Amino acid sequence: MAKKYVYLFSEGNADMRNILGGKGANLAEMTNIGLPVPHGFTISTEACTQYYSDNKCINEEIQNQIFEALSKIEKQQNKKFGDNTNPYLVSVRSGARVSMPGMMDTILNLGLNDVAVEGLAKKTNNPRFAYDSYRRFIQMFSDVVMGVEKSTFEKIIDDVKTKKHIVSDLELTTDDIKNLIQQYKKVYFEHINEDFPQDPKIQLMYAVKAVFDSWDNSRAVVYRRMNDIPAEWGTAVNIQSMVFGNMGETSGTGVAFTRNPSTGEKALYGEYLMNAQGEDVVAGVRTPMPISQLKNQNPKLYDQFVEIAYNLEKHYKDMQDMEFTIEEGKLYMLQTRNGKRTAQASLQVAVDLVNEGMLTEKEALMKIEPKSLDALLHPTFKPSALKAATKIATGLPASPGAGYGKISFSAEDAKVRTQNKEKVILVRLETSPEDIEGMYSAQGIVTARGGMTSHAAVVARGMGRTCVAGVPGLIVDADKKLLIINGKQYTEKDSISIDGSTGHIYDGEVATEPASLTGNFATIMSWADKYRKLHIHTNADTPKDAEQAVKFGAEGIGLCRTEHMFFDSDRIMAMREMIVSTTEEERQVALDKLLPMQKSDFKGLFYAMKEMPVTIRFLDPPLHEFLPHTVDEMNILANQMNVKYETIKNTVDRLHEFNPMLGHRGCRLSITYPEIARMQTRAVIEAAIEVANEKGYKVHPEIMIPLVGDLKEFKYVKNIVKSVADKIIFDSKSDIKYKVGTMIEIPRAALLADEIAQEAEFFSVGTNDLTQMTFGFSRDDAGAFLGNYYDKKIFEQDPFQKLDTKGVGKLIEMAVSLGRKERPNLPVGICGEHGGDPYSISFCHNAGLTYVSCSPYRVPIARLAAAQASIKSK
Amino acid sequence: MAKKYVYLFSEGNADMRNILGGKGANLAEMTNIGLPVPHGFTISTEACTQYYSDNKCINEEIQNQIFEALSKIEKQQNKKFGDNTNPYLVSVRSGARVSMPGMMDTILNLGLNDVAVEGLAKKTNNPRFAYDSYRRFIQMFSDVVMGVEKSTFEKIIDDVKTKKHIVSDLELTTDDIKNLIQQYKKVYFEHINEDFPQDPKIQLMYAVKAVFDSWDNSRAVVYRRMNDIPAEWGTAVNIQSMVFGNMGETSGTGVAFTRNPSTGEKALYGEYLMNAQGEDVVAGVRTPMPISQLKNQNPKLYDQFVEIAYNLEKHYKDMQDMEFTIEEGKLYMLQTRNGKRTAQASLQVAVDLVNEGMLTEKEALMKIEPKSLDALLHPTFKPSALKAATKIATGLPASPGAGYGKISFSAEDAKVRTQNKEKVILVRLETSPEDIEGMYSAQGIVTARGGMTSHAAVVARGMGRTCVAGVPGLIVDADKKLLIINGKQYTEKDSISIDGSTGHIYDGEVATEPASLTGNFATIMSWADKYRKLHIHTNADTPKDAEQAVKFGAEGIGLCRTEHMFFDSDRIMAMREMIVSTTEEERQVALDKLLPMQKSDFKGLFYAMKEMPVTIRFLDPPLHEFLPHTVDEMNILANQMNVKYETIKNTVDRLHEFNPMLGHRGCRLSITYPEIARMQTRAVIEAAIEVANEKGYKVHPEIMIPLVGDLKEFKYVKNIVKSVADKIIFDSKSDIKYKVGTMIEIPRAALLADEIAQEAEFFSVGTNDLTQMTFGFSRDDAGAFLGNYYDKKIFEQDPFQKLDTKGVGKLIEMAVSLGRKERPNLPVGICGEHGGDPYSISFCHNAGLTYVSCSPYRVPIARLAAAQASIKSK
Repeated sequence: MAKKYVYLFSEGNADMRNILGGKGANLAEMTNIGLPVPHGFTISTEACTQYYSDNKCINEEIQNQIFEALSKIEKQQNKKFGDNTNPYLVSVRSGARVSMPGMMDTILNLGLNDVAVEGLAKKTNNPRFAYDSYRRFIQMFSDVVMGVEKSTFEKIIDDVKTKKHIVSDLELTTDDIKNLIQQYKKVYFEHINEDFPQDPKIQLMYAVKAVFDSWDNSRAVVYRRMNDIPAEWGTAVNIQSMVFGNMGETSGTGVAFTRNPSTGEKALYGEYLMNAQGEDVVAGVRTPMPISQLKNQNPKLYDQFVEIAYNLEKHYKDMQDMEFTIEEGKLYMLQTRNGKRTAQASLQVAVDLVNEGMLTEKEALMKIEPKSLDALLHPTFKPSALKAATKIATGLPASPGAGYGKISFSAEDAKVRTQNKEKVILVRLETSPEDIEGMYSAQGIVTARGGMTSHAAVVARGMGRTCVAGVPGLIVDADKKLLIINGKQYTEKDSISIDGSTGHIYDGEVATEPASLTGNFATIMSWADKYRKLHIHTNADTPKDAEQAVKFGAEGIGLCRTEHMFFDSDRIMAMREMIVSTTEEERQVALDKLLPMQKSDFKGLFYAMKEMPVTIRFLDPPLHEFLPHTVDEMNILANQMNVKYETIKNTVDRLHEFNPMLGHRGCRLSITYPEIARMQTRAVIEAAIEVANEKGYKVHPEIMIPLVGDLKEFKYVKNIVKSVADKIIFDSKSDIKYKVGTMIEIPRAALLADEIAQEAEFFSVGTNDLTQMTFGFSRDDAGAFLGNYYDKKIFEQDPFQKLDTKGVGKLIEMAVSLGRKERPNLPVGICGEHGGDPYSISFCHNAGLTYVSCSPYRVPIARLAAAQASIKSK
Repeated sequence: MAKKYVYLFSEGNADMRNILGGKGANLAEMTNIGLPVPHGFTISTEACTQYYSDNKCINEEIQNQIFEALSKIEKQQNKKFGDNTNPYLVSVRSGARVSMPGMMDTILNLGLNDVAVEGLAKKTNNPRFAYDSYRRFIQMFSDVVMGVEKSTFEKIIDDVKTKKHIVSDLELTTDDIKNLIQQYKKVYFEHINEDFPQDPKIQLMYAVKAVFDSWDNSRAVVYRRMNDIPAEWGTAVNIQSMVFGNMGETSGTGVAFTRNPSTGEKALYGEYLMNAQGEDVVAGVRTPMPISQLKNQNPKLYDQFVEIAYNLEKHYKDMQDMEFTIEEGKLYMLQTRNGKRTAQASLQVAVDLVNEGMLTEKEALMKIEPKSLDALLHPTFKPSALKAATKIATGLPASPGAGYGKISFSAEDAKVRTQNKEKVILVRLETSPEDIEGMYSAQGIVTARGGMTSHAAVVARGMGRTCVAGVPGLIVDADKKLLIINGKQYTEKDSISIDGSTGHIYDGEVATEPASLTGNFATIMSWADKYRKLHIHTNADTPKDAEQAVKFGAEGIGLCRTEHMFFDSDRIMAMREMIVSTTEEERQVALDKLLPMQKSDFKGLFYAMKEMPVTIRFLDPPLHEFLPHTVDEMNILANQMNVKYETIKNTVDRLHEFNPMLGHRGCRLSITYPEIARMQTRAVIEAAIEVANEKGYKVHPEIMIPLVGDLKEFKYVKNIVKSVADKIIFDSKSDIKYKVGTMIEIPRAALLADEIAQEAEFFSVGTNDLTQMTFGFSRDDAGAFLGNYYDKKIFEQDPFQKLDTKGVGKLIEMAVSLGRKERPNLPVGICGEHGGDPYSISFCHNAGLTYVSCSPYRVPIARLAAAQASIKSK
């Protein structure tokens, strides 16, 4: 038997969202619970998938099923497509599993042609209505289905109005409209080289095809990639009998929410317009009325609607967003769906629905999109201040939040001015690792160049600093200390304000208000903590980050990158001295300078984290990252260090690598230079003992060895750590406990995790590097071809954003199962960007990980995502 | 019960090689089959391993067992350590599982001290013998055990002889010797700061410790790495009762082989010396006599020895290398082992032993070291010519073989002169990809710089051209066309000769003789082919390579790297034109120029391979490898191409990558530029059809897509290939069959091999890249730290030489089992350097691979190794 591709509304239900799409499933559900829904049917998402595998052709089987369904409905309605007395008209709407911008707009009045329009005129006894419907249909069909510019038609109608000296469309006579129809048809023929189709079935097939095609237009593709929606899902098409809101003063149309989508307040919220079709509400030509007005205008109908709304909310256990039409005093429901809402409203609705007994805590948690929390964690502009602000440019929303300050053109300047209590925005062409301190000091960062994964963007997100990157038309002249936007010059005395959630830049200072972590937010977080299994740690390199993360609910530090500490201007010199050293003794002298600095860093972290675990990763990047690379910079360094230029040059040359990502870094550094590992061990353990003695905390340092691929590598470094640490602990008569574990970021480490677990006391999966090596491409270089991969649908997702659960995930699962075979209670976590991604967190929960570690501002998101994963898996 | 660490010879046998070492196991075996072996015992290899895990300390248990064995032997011999009437003396020798240069030398006469020497004098009634033995012992012990320079002692003895105007040691009187002993002891004290140990047990423990320590000296470590010997094996120590070949004219010592180790000829071969200890034979002070002389001197003893030799060979089923001592007319066997032999002898012996019925073919195959075949595959210098040659320098033996010619300083020059029938040796500072043609033309290559894995070395080995690399003291001035060796200047008119098997460079022309692939070689190969399961393919990019490989027995081409074809001077321009193109149209113009060239390459390969499979890999390296990088070179290219310098510069900059190994290469190129894949497909398929039509061969092209990590990547490129290929085949009415398969060289491809096998018709594991990504280090950069890894015993092997069977091997096994789950008859091969490595081939056999592909000169080695793997696995 042939596959079923077409479902009458009466044949479906809300659970069939995958096949019928969201809109279709809800129309079916409403039909079945007896609400007044115009009859119709849904062409399934599977038909869409079939359409693509048939090289964009709607095959005969699908066509037959469509026409069969159509004739059933015609019989029910006792109308006929294209009939000259009682013509059947339909609307055509797209409807994927989740609502998606970029998809095809609605087409109304399909089925009208030169004959049917007469029938409609006779039947309604309203020729003007009939011809205007036909005119609208030709325009809509030409634009939406055939791609003829809407403005072409608008120009024609405007010309007529100008000639007749009239303003409103309502003033056009039936003859005017008939005339317009003739002109529209001519335009259609000129553009399409075919007459406007008179056969309603052909009109319908064109429309269905247009919906299917819109699934794959470029806007839809981008949206899907950003929202983890696979191309295979496809879209459904809903064909529904027309009801008319424009049949006169007892007809109308409107939209409404069961609660306020901005605040979450419990009150019917919406607007409507009498004698109008849906497009008129949206177009804004006439001003709609608030839904509460309907109570006065038609109390019976209003009560009916309120009851339906209440029942739908109860039925779907969520705030509903509904569309309705009134045809000659009769109410029809055209759509219902869970309403989109702001993050704030989303928390309010969730908490209210639990309080109202409509949802359990678990159900409520599942209703909140974890990523939406991000908007609640950062300062925002005061709405009143924002209204008065002047937008001067827009870039990429690289890191959320809002901030203002005077313009600062260098990291050093930003640091100094911040110390002098000035608020500054750091404005750079692009940023580099040396800018970190300045980025930290600033209220926000703007870069002229760079994308969402540029250095500035990644670092800013990590530290929760707002950032706008890649701003077109923005010129930065750091030498002259000038910022030029659209020809206007700004100096370091001028202030700007930036919104990293939208990418907007404003002139002057726009007042901000801080994020609130109490109230509904706190309630939701407490529920999340109740149900999640995963622990949530944070990636933090400074006490400030650590404190922020603890405020957001972090339960430990999963990753402290010690190298970030070496970029500070007072440390980089000692670091470079160490690198340029040619003997172990020289190197030791430089390391002795770094020791007290590292120690004080670690003490700061231990103060902040108290008795929570603090995982410190030993030096990881290739040493040449710390060295200058231009002749000028090398000369400056040579002068500062009092060595010859050639010495610096030789060191830089010697450390050059063809593939630094696969070079001398990670534990390989500790193996070549054990004295670095000794210094770092000393700094960690002495800091821990001192903080324990000062504060009485049971400090929990965990030392993490990066880039291990073989048990012997790990063992070698672990032995160094233990020999130094145990002696310090013994000498100081401390009872401090520490652990030594490893990163799993080399494929071989995952493959041989059982061996490595013989010695490693914990695993932390470094998904960034593991992704690079599992795929064999470098994050820095993949940009050159990933664009093509998306275009050609080879990849739909960036594996650096969303964990590749099939490939990289398989290695993670191996690491967990092999590691725990050897050491049953082995803690396994992940650090790296994926630690804050809800999809990836869900994978981590299912893979049995102990914790995920993410940047401080992702901690609340991770808490919620972890709870959802746990609830889902039951 | 305590572990047994010490075994009397009577307690062991030949099968206990792992515990007793080769020497110990054979001493035990000889003892047990009733041969005259002086009594003794072996300290096991496990004692050595224990010594290292006890931080280089011989623990009490082991000491006790040693002394217990010692006292048993003392009782048997009725002698006592240090006794003043009948002192017990021993020799101490190292003995690992396999004999290993760099290990500790023998110590003789241990047990002598100031008292025992008197006993020995009395007992033998030969004071001079006794004191001379003591003197020798002190010297040997000081040198070998305590590291006091031998020359220190030699100087003392020389001084005495000078003073006394005598020449031979034999002229020294007993008093002279007593005097020397005093002086030796003084030297010992000065160096060691201790008196020469008088307690024989202390002497013994020092000696044992010295043997254990020698297992880990740097020479031994290097040897182990080169020969795949793990550090865990350890060495045994053999303690054996002394017998004296220096007790007078009825005593003597010697060594002998059961067959000629140079030629394999069946005849006792060896030499001996009367009234001498083993060291005298080696030292070369006196000239030993051929073993056949013994027949005249002592026919009875000679016959006894011949019988023993015959029996040992029969017993061990292999040519034996024996040491013996005659003490006052009595024969003692001190050692037997399978004799080392030349490659030529090894084949002769194997064939003879089969003919003699002593070995089966399978057993004979197991006796031949596959790598040794290499020496038989290349031309060698005529022995007579070599004798007369003058060696002028020595570098690294980078690629075996011998050759001579006039010096050529550039690849272009080498090419032109070779075309003019001159023989040249290409001499360069180092080579680069553009030199390939010149390297190919030359008789051999010398580079001043670079190691065993430099470009020159790798490429030369691949093409079977002899090469000497990294020659110290060699100065190349290519501009002036001067080669300077030790101050002497050579011009392009001078000839040199090079031996890439030894690294030697000779003045002038040294005559060579070609390799012979008939006779014993052909016999052995035919046996190997009978027993192996693996097919042997070759990596060949040119018809010449392919023909060579077929001569060596290759059954197909497993890897043709198409990019090598683009470096030819007449093609690189078209290639660069393609790269600099900014539109698909421009690129197509350049590709149209490349098409006929590629096609003729492929035709050449198909002619050479006839009906064997030819696997052609599509363009793999990042495009920037084809571009010049210096300003001068870029200017030249800009002129040649008639574009602006900036255009070239921009392209070079645009293509720059941070980690090219993880960059835009492999199938990623075909996805970005499908027109490249289309051109290559057209070239392969048109060439195949033309050759099939011309010759009537059933040509078997196999197209291989590199660097695939995802099914969709493969599918995308396969679709391009199929659409082009199928149309050509259809249009030309050909019935040619082709396959499309993939490299497995990205970890993800191995992890998801089941998915990829849905579309891929064969797998070829690219172990070079797979090793890089599995370990996360790049071959080009690993040099910076691998040295430390070897020093610190983190790695004992270079994973690029010897397959990492644990990690990379696990991925290969996954690829095989997942791939065949989806496609049961999936052919899986490997290409890459490991394809010619016997250890790796053995892994491939066990992993169920279909074939290995290696460079032409490795094909015979691979055939033998594959046979051995197959025989072993049964």
